[in-house]
Amino acid sequence: MLLAYSAWPEIEAWLKHSKTVVVPIGSNEQHGPTGLLGTDWMCPEIIAQAAHDKAPDAILVAPTFNIGMAQHHLGFPGTISLRPSTFQAAIGDWVSSLSRHGFERIYFLNGHGGNIASIEAAFSEIYAEWSFAEERCPFMLKLVNWWNLAGVEKLANAQFPTGHGSHATPSEIAVTQAAYPHAIKTANLAPRIAPTGPIRDALDYRARFPDGRIGSDPLQASPEKGRELIDLSAEGLLKDIQAFAAEVQP
Amino acid sequence: MLLAYSAWPEIEAWLKHSKTVVVPIGSNEQHGPTGLLGTDWMCPEIIAQAAHDKAPDAILVAPTFNIGMAQHHLGFPGTISLRPSTFQAAIGDWVSSLSRHGFERIYFLNGHGGNIASIEAAFSEIYAEWSFAEERCPFMLKLVNWWNLAGVEKLANAQFPTGHGSHATPSEIAVTQAAYPHAIKTANLAPRIAPTGPIRDALDYRARFPDGRIGSDPLQASPEKGRELIDLSAEGLLKDIQAFAAEVQP
Amino acid sequence: MLLAYSAWPEIEAWLKHSKTVVVPIGSNEQHGPTGLLGTDWMCPEIIAQAAHDKAPDAILVAPTFNIGMAQHHLGFPGTISLRPSTFQAAIGDWVSSLSRHGFERIYFLNGHGGNIASIEAAFSEIYAEWSFAEERCPFMLKLVNWWNLAGVEKLANAQFPTGHGSHATPSEIAVTQAAYPHAIKTANLAPRIAPTGPIRDALDYRARFPDGRIGSDPLQASPEKGRELIDLSAEGLLKDIQAFAAEVQP
Amino acid sequence: MLLAYSAWPEIEAWLKHSKTVVVPIGSNEQHGPTGLLGTDWMCPEIIAQAAHDKAPDAILVAPTFNIGMAQHHLGFPGTISLRPSTFQAAIGDWVSSLSRHGFERIYFLNGHGGNIASIEAAFSEIYAEWSFAEERCPFMLKLVNWWNLAGVEKLANAQFPTGHGSHATPSEIAVTQAAYPHAIKTANLAPRIAPTGPIRDALDYRARFPDGRIGSDPLQASPEKGRELIDLSAEGLLKDIQAFAAEVQP
Amino acid sequence: MLLAYSAWPEIEAWLKHSKTVVVPIGSNEQHGPTGLLGTDWMCPEIIAQAAHDKAPDAILVAPTFNIGMAQHHLGFPGTISLRPSTFQAAIGDWVSSLSRHGFERIYFLNGHGGNIASIEAAFSEIYAEWSFAEERCPFMLKLVNWWNLAGVEKLANAQFPTGHGSHATPSEIAVTQAAYPHAIKTANLAPRIAPTGPIRDALDYRARFPDGRIGSDPLQASPEKGRELIDLSAEGLLKDIQAFAAEVQP
Amino acid sequence: MLLAYSAWPEIEAWLKHSKTVVVPIGSNEQHGPTGLLGTDWMCPEIIAQAAHDKAPDAILVAPTFNIGMAQHHLGFPGTISLRPSTFQAAIGDWVSSLSRHGFERIYFLNGHGGNIASIEAAFSEIYAEWSFAEERCPFMLKLVNWWNLAGVEKLANAQFPTGHGSHATPSEIAVTQAAYPHAIKTANLAPRIAPTGPIRDALDYRARFPDGRIGSDPLQASPEKGRELIDLSAEGLLKDIQAFAAEVQP
Repeated sequence: MLLAYSAWPEIEAWLKHSKTVVVPIGSNEQHGPTGLLGTDWMCPEIIAQAAHDKAPDAILVAPTFNIGMAQHHLGFPGTISLRPSTFQAAIGDWVSSLSRHGFERIYFLNGHGGNIASIEAAFSEIYAEWSFAEERCPFMLKLVNWWNLAGVEKLANAQFPTGHGSHATPSEIAVTQAAYPHAIKTANLAPRIAPTGPIRDALDYRARFPDGRIGSDPLQASPEKGRELIDLSAEGLLKDIQAFAAEVQP
Repeated sequence: MLLAYSAWPEIEAWLKHSKTVVVPIGSNEQHGPTGLLGTDWMCPEIIAQAAHDKAPDAILVAPTFNIGMAQHHLGFPGTISLRPSTFQAAIGDWVSSLSRHGFERIYFLNGHGGNIASIEAAFSEIYAEWSFAEERCPFMLKLVNWWNLAGVEKLANAQFPTGHGSHATPSEIAVTQAAYPHAIKTANLAPRIAPTGPIRDALDYRARFPDGRIGSDPLQASPEKGRELIDLSAEGLLKDIQAFAAEVQP
Repeated sequence: MLLAYSAWPEIEAWLKHSKTVVVPIGSNEQHGPTGLLGTDWMCPEIIAQAAHDKAPDAILVAPTFNIGMAQHHLGFPGTISLRPSTFQAAIGDWVSSLSRHGFERIYFLNGHGGNIASIEAAFSEIYAEWSFAEERCPFMLKLVNWWNLAGVEKLANAQFPTGHGSHATPSEIAVTQAAYPHAIKTANLAPRIAPTGPIRDALDYRARFPDGRIGSDPLQASPEKGRELIDLSAEGLLKDIQAFAAEVQP
Repeated sequence: MLLAYSAWPEIEAWLKHSKTVVVPIGSNEQHGPTGLLGTDWMCPEIIAQAAHDKAPDAILVAPTFNIGMAQHHLGFPGTISLRPSTFQAAIGDWVSSLSRHGFERIYFLNGHGGNIASIEAAFSEIYAEWSFAEERCPFMLKLVNWWNLAGVEKLANAQFPTGHGSHATPSEIAVTQAAYPHAIKTANLAPRIAPTGPIRDALDYRARFPDGRIGSDPLQASPEKGRELIDLSAEGLLKDIQAFAAEVQP
Repeated sequence: MLLAYSAWPEIEAWLKHSKTVVVPIGSNEQHGPTGLLGTDWMCPEIIAQAAHDKAPDAILVAPTFNIGMAQHHLGFPGTISLRPSTFQAAIGDWVSSLSRHGFERIYFLNGHGGNIASIEAAFSEIYAEWSFAEERCPFMLKLVNWWNLAGVEKLANAQFPTGHGSHATPSEIAVTQAAYPHAIKTANLAPRIAPTGPIRDALDYRARFPDGRIGSDPLQASPEKGRELIDLSAEGLLKDIQAFAAEVQP
Repeated sequence: MLLAYSAWPEIEAWLKHSKTVVVPIGSNEQHGPTGLLGTDWMCPEIIAQAAHDKAPDAILVAPTFNIGMAQHHLGFPGTISLRPSTFQAAIGDWVSSLSRHGFERIYFLNGHGGNIASIEAAFSEIYAEWSFAEERCPFMLKLVNWWNLAGVEKLANAQFPTGHGSHATPSEIAVTQAAYPHAIKTANLAPRIAPTGPIRDALDYRARFPDGRIGSDPLQASPEKGRELIDLSAEGLLKDIQAFAAEVQP
């Protein structure tokens, strides 16, 4: 079920048999000369919708949380970033809203490595309210990056044995190519495999990584490889949320 | 141009000839038994994309700001709301990101009446930084509700002379029907035209408006009427952003 | 009853028969060459006290909330503004204080158009606590601009058929002239009717509106006209708070 | 000069010869069975206006900051308190506004002991911005309680050798009696001199100090004594702001 | 008992017979050419540990809160300061943590005058939650500066009849000399007794007090005098926390 | 050099030849029946001081940041936690203080896994200020967990091939045993190796991990093994900060 495309009585009905919801979460940020600015929020959205296509009654997908923590990419036009503090407050409000309706398992399917620290800190901020109050938190939060779903990293390594890298990777770009073939971009990339290094502020980033990529050769991406990644990820997601829903709390 | 479906060099190129960007902004909240939860963020997104379809080189559309201020709808499952303070902080970060890249005219196309106060307060918070610093703010912000675009309210009144109401209106639902015909919902609505009244907290709201609608009869909506509204709104949007871009600052 | 001029046992006694309190709220900001900096907080204070003079047992007037959201006027000396975020936090604390004592109807009589968005956003922030908690908010908040009290706008239009404008209006200045005749200012105003335009940051404002007025000719103000406005507003206020106190919650 | 009763060109003119402004600051809180709820903001306002009456060209008085930190008095109806965090933020915005206009000496004349810690913390928060930035703060802040003006405490002790106490004191009540003789309250107070003790939360406070007073016998107050206190305080204030204005920064 | 050097079952056992805990709190800031940067957090830590050495079962000492409000010292390298707002938030979290475990008397032994306002404001912020909620706060907070423990100021005045001053005082430096004799510093101080004056931002401070001291001659310090101060303070602390634990709430 | 045991001129001198400073950062939280509550802040402090003992001129050690993010341990007495938001604000103020003095390489040596997300989010919040402002951040931040220093994890695995676990590990307890042999605790632990599982709020945690340990058998700890770990960590730290200081920014 797709939450945004449903009316409220449908969600009320859903809650009678399931307390689990999936939130695709990502970022809108530069992904090199050929990657879409929306790559990081599109990937989890695409995968969640693919899972929904496979088993519409087995998953409830919330609207996509599309702006995350991308301060280091602000040197490239089109990047939109929340400050970590704003991002954490917004995650708190999403969780307050969903838990208020009775959702007890809130699963964030993440598409951006730079989001991880802030999402985990947000979870701790949320849990802390209950911990200080000496009350049991009535819901569980889970963060999973789509590339950590069962088998996905292995597939990506097989598809791209060299030049996968860590930003503007061929795997994430392949996923968006499969979903949006009309928006495939081409460019000459030099060097073919981008440099690597630490991540700090935006100007430092642009000095280290002049075209935005880190360690990747995204020209290896293809819609076919993207389709494989989407299929495997969607299967992994369905299994993972089933396990999450079944998890017993001591 | 659709920002999220572009790569950063394309935005860099855009900025050489235009400093204007449009942000569709809405809310994810109950819209009665037949309205989609995403109605309020879908409408401006649909209209902005329709404008883009008409004149792709005349408009740059940012990703959709899809969660707004909907605290009063929290009594209905599926509603997701930011607190006004979080919402305002997030608007601030969007503006900081876009202005940092050189955008000087940031146009928010809004789909939710409940957002207006918070968006305007956010604008004042942003401007205040410059006002306290005795510096000229290097960008202009504009908020326009899609139903206030030229001619749109008149058309809606002609389409729906009675029962337009103010929440879960036939006009907004018609817009989503035109865009997502597979997601058209039906229900018996009693009374046919919903009651009206003041808006306060969520439980007060649900007591006053038991199925979520305010003053509306959304069963009058149709995809055809939605298409008319979208066309007129898209034209109005293109004209309005042209005027905004041309506005001369004293 | 005037709260600040009472001792606490008097308020305790008041609460036995009424749960309603009126908070005059405004701003301290430039009002052109002839308007007092205090105009916007004086007007609601003057009107509330006039209502009190007419019917002291029918109204409880809180102290005046005298500093509001006036960032756009900071280009003119004497303006004092809260940031919207501070303003909203302060409104929250006022409401927490008053509701804590048992007030269930808190009526803000506003004197500054620039306050409206922030006050409404503050109301939503307050209500949101209850909405997220799934509890009924034990009080109702109401915002009314004094010029929207019954008949007042009509009177002002009759008094000032041209040149009423929207800032440093002859009506608000007339109200202060009636109350503080010793503080009537004169000046040559050129043009006689000030320009109009959008409101943004402080330097933009001063460039557009060099002497601070927007669309108004305040030289038309007189203490007599102010007295008429005060009388009508005071009557309107008494009726409006009676209606508010009588409002039945579903 | 009274800022709120002036127009902006008058403040612009003032700033050509003086950079000093006085902000009366207090609290609206219970003051025992006979003290006005407004006592703590009225006293500095009364004294500042008395100073103004003596020497209108020697002092510029801002509008009164009338709600302070009174959480411990919330057990008594009519008390309105800001949280310390809100209070500090608001002081910051007042200072930003006034310093933005060119005021370099901002003098807070305080009427509430419970405000002192928060005002001092607010000053440090303001200074910290400059200290972290390694820049010289362009203005000086000063906090003076009216009872610490030259000779005032001595006079109060002479007037009220026993039962002065520390809350709802005969001296502060005398000041309000002098200014507002129509609002003098009477009550039987038992014990005649109230108990003393530590200050914590509101319910603890009400348990310790059942009628709100601490250590005081306010029945000794009289308008005549109030007039003496006002006169001496007004003189002290004029001297003190003159000294503050003349203070040379190394 | 030293909390940090205990395991949690030992604290659980402690709470069966005592609800009191002592938090040494200070600052890390310049203390002139011969004073240690850690002086202000070391002094309360040293004294609390000395009290513990005398009567290990009579006192539970929390870890030291070592960074406080020192914005005015930021002109001197090595100073680390929290903003007052951060400091207050952190105190709130400490108190929430300790009270959550059942501590009902939380005693802050302070070593830095510049902390006092912020700590008191933090206490009020904490109490305010209970005051607004109309609930009794289940714990009591107490702030005591070590130099205000019984007899300590008198001893310091006897040891240092001239040149005690108010920052980088011989008494506080003597305390650290007694505890850390290997870290005794020497320097030529000119003038021997430092100047005095008001405290504002960091650059103002450094201009007024070029070597960091205020009114003091720390060369008078000696480990022997420090030992006397520690002994007397430790005795005073033991008595004071005993009295605090025995305090009966009305 | 130990910052807190130095006077400010010594830090001024240090800054002439080095811009690097090390901040030991940890947490005060339960570590099972035999682990000290201070374990997580003691370990980095002990290691930093050991590095200082080896090469006092090669390292400047700041005072220890001893309270971190430990909300999940609040079910066990003695735990003191900051909320993630407070923790991040405090890290920001530490960095602002140190960078203000000219430190350009600020190295956090961390002792608590639960701190990592919040510290990284804090770094991003700090960098974001520069990224939004389009300015180069004048300093670099680095986070290193002591167990990730060169060779340390390998040594710990060799020392404790089974039952190392992830909380209250024998390695961290061994480090504190080496440093504080008088505070070695014993207890019967059943099961000998604690269970593992996810980390959520405090009551969930205590239900899963009844004595506080996760996956560990801390009874294997010994001061001798702790000494080995300290020595290796101290060497690794010295090398790592040397490399950090030498890092060239593009």
